[in-house]
Amino acid sequence: MNTVTRPLLGMALSALSVVACVQASAAPKSPSGTAALSAADPKSAVPVSKWGADDEIGAANELKPALVVAATKLVKTGKTYQLGMEVNKSTPAFRHRNFRLITTNPGQEGGKTEGPNKFTYNDEHFEGWLGVGTQLNGLGHIGIDSTYYNANRARDFVDIEGVKKLGLEKTPPIVTRGVLLDMAAYYGTDVVKEGTAFSPSDIETVLKKENVTIQPGDVVIFHTGWLDLAGKDNARFLAGEPGINRAAAQYLAEKRVVAVGADNWALEAVPFEKGAGTFEGNQTLITKNGIYVLENLVTKDLAHDKVYEFLFVLGHPRYTGTTQSIINPVAIH
Amino acid sequence: MNTVTRPLLGMALSALSVVACVQASAAPKSPSGTAALSAADPKSAVPVSKWGADDEIGAANELKPALVVAATKLVKTGKTYQLGMEVNKSTPAFRHRNFRLITTNPGQEGGKTEGPNKFTYNDEHFEGWLGVGTQLNGLGHIGIDSTYYNANRARDFVDIEGVKKLGLEKTPPIVTRGVLLDMAAYYGTDVVKEGTAFSPSDIETVLKKENVTIQPGDVVIFHTGWLDLAGKDNARFLAGEPGINRAAAQYLAEKRVVAVGADNWALEAVPFEKGAGTFEGNQTLITKNGIYVLENLVTKDLAHDKVYEFLFVLGHPRYTGTTQSIINPVAIH
Amino acid sequence: MNTVTRPLLGMALSALSVVACVQASAAPKSPSGTAALSAADPKSAVPVSKWGADDEIGAANELKPALVVAATKLVKTGKTYQLGMEVNKSTPAFRHRNFRLITTNPGQEGGKTEGPNKFTYNDEHFEGWLGVGTQLNGLGHIGIDSTYYNANRARDFVDIEGVKKLGLEKTPPIVTRGVLLDMAAYYGTDVVKEGTAFSPSDIETVLKKENVTIQPGDVVIFHTGWLDLAGKDNARFLAGEPGINRAAAQYLAEKRVVAVGADNWALEAVPFEKGAGTFEGNQTLITKNGIYVLENLVTKDLAHDKVYEFLFVLGHPRYTGTTQSIINPVAIH
Amino acid sequence: MNTVTRPLLGMALSALSVVACVQASAAPKSPSGTAALSAADPKSAVPVSKWGADDEIGAANELKPALVVAATKLVKTGKTYQLGMEVNKSTPAFRHRNFRLITTNPGQEGGKTEGPNKFTYNDEHFEGWLGVGTQLNGLGHIGIDSTYYNANRARDFVDIEGVKKLGLEKTPPIVTRGVLLDMAAYYGTDVVKEGTAFSPSDIETVLKKENVTIQPGDVVIFHTGWLDLAGKDNARFLAGEPGINRAAAQYLAEKRVVAVGADNWALEAVPFEKGAGTFEGNQTLITKNGIYVLENLVTKDLAHDKVYEFLFVLGHPRYTGTTQSIINPVAIH
Repeated sequence: MNTVTRPLLGMALSALSVVACVQASAAPKSPSGTAALSAADPKSAVPVSKWGADDEIGAANELKPALVVAATKLVKTGKTYQLGMEVNKSTPAFRHRNFRLITTNPGQEGGKTEGPNKFTYNDEHFEGWLGVGTQLNGLGHIGIDSTYYNANRARDFVDIEGVKKLGLEKTPPIVTRGVLLDMAAYYGTDVVKEGTAFSPSDIETVLKKENVTIQPGDVVIFHTGWLDLAGKDNARFLAGEPGINRAAAQYLAEKRVVAVGADNWALEAVPFEKGAGTFEGNQTLITKNGIYVLENLVTKDLAHDKVYEFLFVLGHPRYTGTTQSIINPVAIH
Repeated sequence: MNTVTRPLLGMALSALSVVACVQASAAPKSPSGTAALSAADPKSAVPVSKWGADDEIGAANELKPALVVAATKLVKTGKTYQLGMEVNKSTPAFRHRNFRLITTNPGQEGGKTEGPNKFTYNDEHFEGWLGVGTQLNGLGHIGIDSTYYNANRARDFVDIEGVKKLGLEKTPPIVTRGVLLDMAAYYGTDVVKEGTAFSPSDIETVLKKENVTIQPGDVVIFHTGWLDLAGKDNARFLAGEPGINRAAAQYLAEKRVVAVGADNWALEAVPFEKGAGTFEGNQTLITKNGIYVLENLVTKDLAHDKVYEFLFVLGHPRYTGTTQSIINPVAIH
Repeated sequence: MNTVTRPLLGMALSALSVVACVQASAAPKSPSGTAALSAADPKSAVPVSKWGADDEIGAANELKPALVVAATKLVKTGKTYQLGMEVNKSTPAFRHRNFRLITTNPGQEGGKTEGPNKFTYNDEHFEGWLGVGTQLNGLGHIGIDSTYYNANRARDFVDIEGVKKLGLEKTPPIVTRGVLLDMAAYYGTDVVKEGTAFSPSDIETVLKKENVTIQPGDVVIFHTGWLDLAGKDNARFLAGEPGINRAAAQYLAEKRVVAVGADNWALEAVPFEKGAGTFEGNQTLITKNGIYVLENLVTKDLAHDKVYEFLFVLGHPRYTGTTQSIINPVAIH
Repeated sequence: MNTVTRPLLGMALSALSVVACVQASAAPKSPSGTAALSAADPKSAVPVSKWGADDEIGAANELKPALVVAATKLVKTGKTYQLGMEVNKSTPAFRHRNFRLITTNPGQEGGKTEGPNKFTYNDEHFEGWLGVGTQLNGLGHIGIDSTYYNANRARDFVDIEGVKKLGLEKTPPIVTRGVLLDMAAYYGTDVVKEGTAFSPSDIETVLKKENVTIQPGDVVIFHTGWLDLAGKDNARFLAGEPGINRAAAQYLAEKRVVAVGADNWALEAVPFEKGAGTFEGNQTLITKNGIYVLENLVTKDLAHDKVYEFLFVLGHPRYTGTTQSIINPVAIH
């Protein structure tokens, strides 16, 4: 993607500047003072979806009953793998994010109980950010200059109480074939070094080694070993990560996958590739192609068992108007 | 207290009183003033688990690879059903519970972006209770006189920041056969009336009609139509519900199911059966038998399609030390 | 944009557009894509403070020991008036705002206590917005096109975890003379009608009637009766209010007051005066002149007792990086 | 208090045990199983208030207009001292407590503004515990065996959404004389060592040295230097503190003060005096005598200026049903 797309983005930005000038002087109808930005055509940077201008679920359109039936045929041993990590106040989290839990005993003050059967209960209050621990990033999560999947501008769909479009409550459960790419094995290490950037060629080599091919509708997951650092060296864990490069993001998009995930916190190589912008791979997948991203997946046991194909099942909590969700997908083999 | 309905519990309490008297006069070393209660043997009311005194996952012990393999064989059409409802600030919730979402744009004040690729993102903060919407109730959720599954006393394992035992993070994903009992069809109505109490005999009649039998390791789900009231008549929705009676709770426990669920907020008939205590059916299932409870499941489409057996997959978020979780299980047929 | 009402601002915006064009073509070094906006000189709309370009407390600079001594001389009867209203989940709140409280008993599960003296305690968790109930609005609260008091741009000082400049923790306690203007008496009603806009002439008439003059360093408070609607007719309460007009905001700024308050939720007349923008009076006071605003003050008893001059004392909670605070100022007479 | 009160408490507990035995066998009408505890007469440990069985404000009854007038006469220089510390996520806090702030820009997504005047604003969401930083502890905060001021039992007035009695919203502003006792000067150090327990005799020596006497209705504040450790050595700060001993708590209660405070987190010496229970001094003041406690006061400047008498003004936020509040009292001299 690198050498091709960046100039295009650059051109888009130049166009934006020009439009801004024209628009600023000629736009008496603009309701607010941010004429320069709002006048830009977000479609220059973020295209209208191939699933239509009204589409809100992107690559989830690739999900098909036939793929579900096919994926269930991959179940051999009956072993299940939970891909979600534990989440609590000690979980290393991105930037400002945090997570807090309160356990209460309502109506039980001083040892009080309810009814002749002495009913008691624990009741939990939670407070924090939806981007802590294992998470699903939806199509409204990441944008380019406040423009999101399918050319939706933040000013038109984002509200302080939740997004009005692109909310994850609209995305169906993701039930399809999962494919694991063991990058740690590929690099011959337990934990792939931060900044290591996986190219399309790296991916194809691993696929060949594992005797798997990526098909439309797949969920592709990278095992890097990086999650092993969480709880052991949180500072290093959060400061960088191995992951896909920009070309790999484009490559996976062209494969028409539903989602891409990894056992790290942002999927792509950090520090970013030379010349790459901030989480540009995520923009390619989510913003431009409507492909979901899965973070901090627990992939260790799959890798250990050399399970490279499996039935992947994710039913994510349906909080209205969210673009992220703390999840626990299940791999069934 | 009640002189009739709970003879076994009554006996336990008499014992408690006697112990209290002995203890109170003979216990100068007691560190706190609640000698009377703490001296009681909670095992009188809540037995030690058949899976051992250290067990923390109860009926999840029934989950077996062979059952997973068998359940995947039930997948015929590839159609998936999400059993989770949307959750937001308007969702009718039990008593004091609430749910609030905040969408923010960190680092984007005044339209600022990050990097040459103009990275922007929406980031959600959530605040509320884990018992809103479709939910999983774990073994630490409901107790008898502050004693919980496997004779665990609240004073020994409950902490303001989460339970130290019985937390749902220890419960594996629930992947097994799901069985739907269409009680609305049985009663010949769209929405079964509140207070309607399902007996073992009712259950057996429905099973026969559906040509299904309950097996150890199953997840049993009741369709009552009650969830249709949520959002239409929240006051009625929360004031009562149809559901199992106490004998049915015992019946299901004897069937060795993993979990029991329904499309209502507390599984059992409310108003409670004549003579029944407060959520006594839940105590039978969760506290005494270590069986999980699923609430507010969206069962409508399963019932409509007459799907009575299916692959049930639940990967619940793994918040450390919680006894409830907002979920979205998937039924696959 | 608007062609008439804000000629000065209009000029600023034209300048902005021109600068944007120049900047957009000539700024390869711009770190982000919002060159157009960031290039604008915010000082066109928001002036540098008369207390210096580094000033962060605005009119609090008017507070002087001599004024404190003088104000204490106003204390005659020793009667105290709390100007703060109760705040809870039923308090009518602006737009998305809410307030929730949880009372817990940590370490007291099942009636447990601490120590031989059986220590127990209630411990409260709070969640909500700082703009609910009686509140102080600081200099970072309200801006013009993301530019705030003393030409501070949001992009330079606002952070998701609190403002880095203009935080209320820097504002000293406000101890000075308070002056009450009984507008309800002036209009001969208990509750002044929504939309009623107080002009400088109205203010001067009331001052004369009350035999008071406004001096530099005063806190000026309007009694309108509007707060009586809170809890009685929340819909009406939030839909409008009587209050100052734009000229009165400018008039009060010229009087060099420290703060202006009222027994309503936004101080100025809503619906806004013909031709006025959105909370333009607040912009005049806070953004352009560094004057604090007090909302939802309980002024009823002061008005009833005809107490028009008093010692005003406000020590606001010092949450770092906030621009609002829920308060309870005290008037002492 | 030590040698006198403890035996009384011991007797109360013996009585409790006896009552429990009698009650447990003879109380068929008890609605729940905690007969032993609920049957005890809490008045054995916590007396009915001298201000009447319905009183909910305790020593605030000592506040009188004459005291207000007298206290204003202490104002000489017009200098104000804010006694509140800054509160943020780094503030060292008791046990499980925390504090988090989120700054948002509602309706300003992508740089959007409101109206022709381009209205923008910062809006803060807060989440945390009311016992962080400088705080007021009310009469419902601390109890003896779940019984609180004026013999109120937790089971009767505590609710998950706030206390139904003893809430701080009922306590009027505290406006009266403040007295500072410079204990750091007394011990000839900047920071008095943890565990140092101030006796009535120590207090009287300091009062004499400062030429002050404690009068009914006073707010008495101890300066120990302990707060200097906050932010420098949080672990030590939270592990102990100098403070009053049990006898001093009783002594101050007999002086009929309204509130007692200090520049530390729990007023009394920690580690506790030999033989003392857990926060027993707080129980004496709050639970038995209805006297308010102020924590983490910033007393440094008062001590530096040798201001030992002053006008004390506290208007605390009126959150309905809370027993604590984060505050910023003002001392005026």
